[in-house]
Amino acid sequence: MPRLHWEDFSPGQVTECGSRLITRAEIIAFAAEYDPQPMHLDEAAARASLFGGLVASGWHSCCVLMRMLTDGMLAETSFMGAPGVEEVQWLAPIRPGARVKARATVLETRASRSRPGLGFVKFRLELVDASDQPIMSLMVSPMFGRRDAGVAGRAAGAGKS
Amino acid sequence: MPRLHWEDFSPGQVTECGSRLITRAEIIAFAAEYDPQPMHLDEAAARASLFGGLVASGWHSCCVLMRMLTDGMLAETSFMGAPGVEEVQWLAPIRPGARVKARATVLETRASRSRPGLGFVKFRLELVDASDQPIMSLMVSPMFGRRDAGVAGRAAGAGKS
Repeated sequence: MPRLHWEDFSPGQVTECGSRLITRAEIIAFAAEYDPQPMHLDEAAARASLFGGLVASGWHSCCVLMRMLTDGMLAETSFMGAPGVEEVQWLAPIRPGARVKARATVLETRASRSRPGLGFVKFRLELVDASDQPIMSLMVSPMFGRRDAGVAGRAAGAGKS
Repeated sequence: MPRLHWEDFSPGQVTECGSRLITRAEIIAFAAEYDPQPMHLDEAAARASLFGGLVASGWHSCCVLMRMLTDGMLAETSFMGAPGVEEVQWLAPIRPGARVKARATVLETRASRSRPGLGFVKFRLELVDASDQPIMSLMVSPMFGRRDAGVAGRAAGAGKS
């Protein structure tokens, strides 16, 4: 059973979700598959870009954030997915060898009107660098199962696999 | 040299960016790396989720859209990156074997005030299914080099590699 349900979130809660080293090899592998721009793939081409050197794809940073959030929080919750994302801001480039930290702050919670077994939690999610300077930020309102609902959430689903 | 610069975009232009088959193997491989939720990884667990079966990560759909946009348009432009993304909406799940199409619609263009060599183009980007029903949508305002600026854009950078 999940440890955290919708009722366990409240505005102002901050969860630190660990740190991760972003390697040159990972930046290039992600870009080759999903965002093959020269500034993400090739050092010489990247030097001629606005960024002056190789930088990670912004989509790569979103994916890294999702993975860190999952390992650092969602995996022990009744997370059930999200309908979308608001205001993704890529504030600073991620260069090879950067160590990033992830952070989730609860902005608000609301019960679902149409589905009594779940509720929404609005978060600001951030990646920051080793000096706590922001790298990226987004807002997202995922759904979580309610403690008393017995709805199959993330961890309940996992238990059946 | 890139074929398309900032000046070549105008509101109302629609670019179709081809189609792509989303396989079960790709859904699982992406999820295992970046979004390891049971509903994206395991058929039995996914059946117990809100989606009733295996579905692609929403972040995976963003990455697929970026790749299709690159191959279908950006690769021949002076694309220079984007500061962020607005209003990502995941409207319908992507299930294994789905064929998706990508589409870019220009909403507006504006010159940069601080950097005379580039301008912004605001797009609505969409993935749609084989029946043209929307799967996901987002808005993004990437930067493109201007034709007369000689600024190193995507293809200019690529040419130096």
